[in-house]
Amino acid sequence: MKAALFKGKGHIELGERPLPTIKEPSDAIVRVVMGCVCGSDLWYYRGINPHKEGSIGHEFIGVVEETGKDVKDPTKGDLVIAPFTFNDDTCPNCKAGFQSQCNHGGAFGNGDTDGGQGEYVRVPYAAATLVKVPTGDYSEDMLASFLSLSDVVSTGYHAVVSAQVKEGDTVAVVGDGAVGLGAVMGAKLLGAKRIIALSRNPDRQKLAKEFGATDIVEERGDGAVKAVMELTNDVGADAALECVGTDESIGTAAAIVRPGGMIGAVGFPTYKEFEYRTLFWKNIGIRGGVAPARQYIPMLLEAVLNGKINPGKIFDLRTDLDNIKEAYVAMDERRAIKSLLKVSEP
Amino acid sequence: MKAALFKGKGHIELGERPLPTIKEPSDAIVRVVMGCVCGSDLWYYRGINPHKEGSIGHEFIGVVEETGKDVKDPTKGDLVIAPFTFNDDTCPNCKAGFQSQCNHGGAFGNGDTDGGQGEYVRVPYAAATLVKVPTGDYSEDMLASFLSLSDVVSTGYHAVVSAQVKEGDTVAVVGDGAVGLGAVMGAKLLGAKRIIALSRNPDRQKLAKEFGATDIVEERGDGAVKAVMELTNDVGADAALECVGTDESIGTAAAIVRPGGMIGAVGFPTYKEFEYRTLFWKNIGIRGGVAPARQYIPMLLEAVLNGKINPGKIFDLRTDLDNIKEAYVAMDERRAIKSLLKVSEP
Repeated sequence: MKAALFKGKGHIELGERPLPTIKEPSDAIVRVVMGCVCGSDLWYYRGINPHKEGSIGHEFIGVVEETGKDVKDPTKGDLVIAPFTFNDDTCPNCKAGFQSQCNHGGAFGNGDTDGGQGEYVRVPYAAATLVKVPTGDYSEDMLASFLSLSDVVSTGYHAVVSAQVKEGDTVAVVGDGAVGLGAVMGAKLLGAKRIIALSRNPDRQKLAKEFGATDIVEERGDGAVKAVMELTNDVGADAALECVGTDESIGTAAAIVRPGGMIGAVGFPTYKEFEYRTLFWKNIGIRGGVAPARQYIPMLLEAVLNGKINPGKIFDLRTDLDNIKEAYVAMDERRAIKSLLKVSEP
Repeated sequence: MKAALFKGKGHIELGERPLPTIKEPSDAIVRVVMGCVCGSDLWYYRGINPHKEGSIGHEFIGVVEETGKDVKDPTKGDLVIAPFTFNDDTCPNCKAGFQSQCNHGGAFGNGDTDGGQGEYVRVPYAAATLVKVPTGDYSEDMLASFLSLSDVVSTGYHAVVSAQVKEGDTVAVVGDGAVGLGAVMGAKLLGAKRIIALSRNPDRQKLAKEFGATDIVEERGDGAVKAVMELTNDVGADAALECVGTDESIGTAAAIVRPGGMIGAVGFPTYKEFEYRTLFWKNIGIRGGVAPARQYIPMLLEAVLNGKINPGKIFDLRTDLDNIKEAYVAMDERRAIKSLLKVSEP
């Protein structure tokens, strides 16, 4: 089958991988309908984080082609959303709602396992992992919205949940990438009254506003802190959603939260200087991590189906596997927020 | 008036300070009935943290002697509990329930302001700061329980609240000092089912059990982690309450929380190695800081008056101002958990 192959820093290309087959009775084989490129894939591409050569991509929706004998639901022909990590739903971490920390789980597209940037994927613990989409005739935009729940919107939402955003809150979102935009949407969904998006990119500002941002702050660093403090009458935000992971971004997040507030952290942590004790002295909490997308997808899917949210708009470059290089390069050059790969018809 | 005076590392003595007088219309003068020595006072005494020479002590209960013209309640003759920080109750931080972060607040006994280890204290924003105890004829033990709410039990409780401990949780308490013991009590109060106290001191173990601990772990470091993991079937605790503030203690706390769990942090942070990112990868949150005792005292007072908790037992050395040196030395040598100073009759 065709699949994107990671070949080291700056090298991504379309190649061949063996068609996956059922290995365990709890497996399913899913034909990928849409995949996409994640911000974390870019970190591999840029050589900032290591990635094994081979399969890549961990976000996808697809149609179930075959199931192991233990998989009763979903069944062949079902359209499904795959969270970016698989999980068995039996371990204590799954039971606590943190399926991304499943004791028997793992990630798609890690070099060895099939990835979302290919034609087929073997999904372990398919009954526990996959979320079935109700039968229907969906537009490409709707499919794109389903796809966005696989990781990026669920991850943004995890920042919102981790920061315990509630009705009426003032929330500041640090990061205008796809995850940050998902966080804006999630904050709106949970009733935040004021959503301040930090962004200096006009296209992303526009999308942030569509998703629910009430204010845009273009400044960075100290300027951003000053601007947010002015917008909040020198109080600070109830919550800051940290969707970048650098020292600058987490420093900004820490500086714009009011005493007693929360930081929801989902940016891949590359910070080196950040010290928790700076939060302690302001009674600010921090919580987050790798999003348990499996926990959030059913609720977010409902919101998509009801037309309450339209997260598929995050994909501003829509291409296919044959153009995998451009899908990466456009994001690397910040010409695209997020690249969608149409792989097959649903 | 008589007051303990801090004179530098290892030097505490009884001396004289001027009788405080009303300076602002929102002040009250309180005659101290009981004060005590805090773990943080010990850090000053040991020269680990700096403290200005002069007044010291920030925990006390007392009787209102005089009030400024704006103070309607409490009035002369009322028995009151002072939280260890004063606050005006009008700033956004106070309104958010974080009175310890009051924009106009401050601490008692900081070298200049009157402290709880003296005969009288001027209390700023008295109406907002002080908590009145219902009129009654209270035993010395009951008075000691009131005193414990001023800081140590409220601080332990802040760890519990910050970690969002709820009915049925498994909680591990790192630190068997007075704050740790207060945290045990607070976890019990909020319905934790299993409370694992880390302690190797027989007296403290006994008190921890009286306060609600269901299990005692005597080991430290890796041994403690192993023991807690065994007790929790390799899952970890839902919450760890960090009541020490060293690299070892926060490392232990981080290692014994289950993925997705919380650390409630109230130990004065002296850690240097601790990196938040280690929590991120386990989806563990951390929240805490200087306790908003003023928020918790009314509820905890109710629990004391109902006989639900008996936190005064934390004071295992009861002496007076004349023996201020021994009050410190006994804690420094770990002969006492916490020293109480009886200053006057209520």
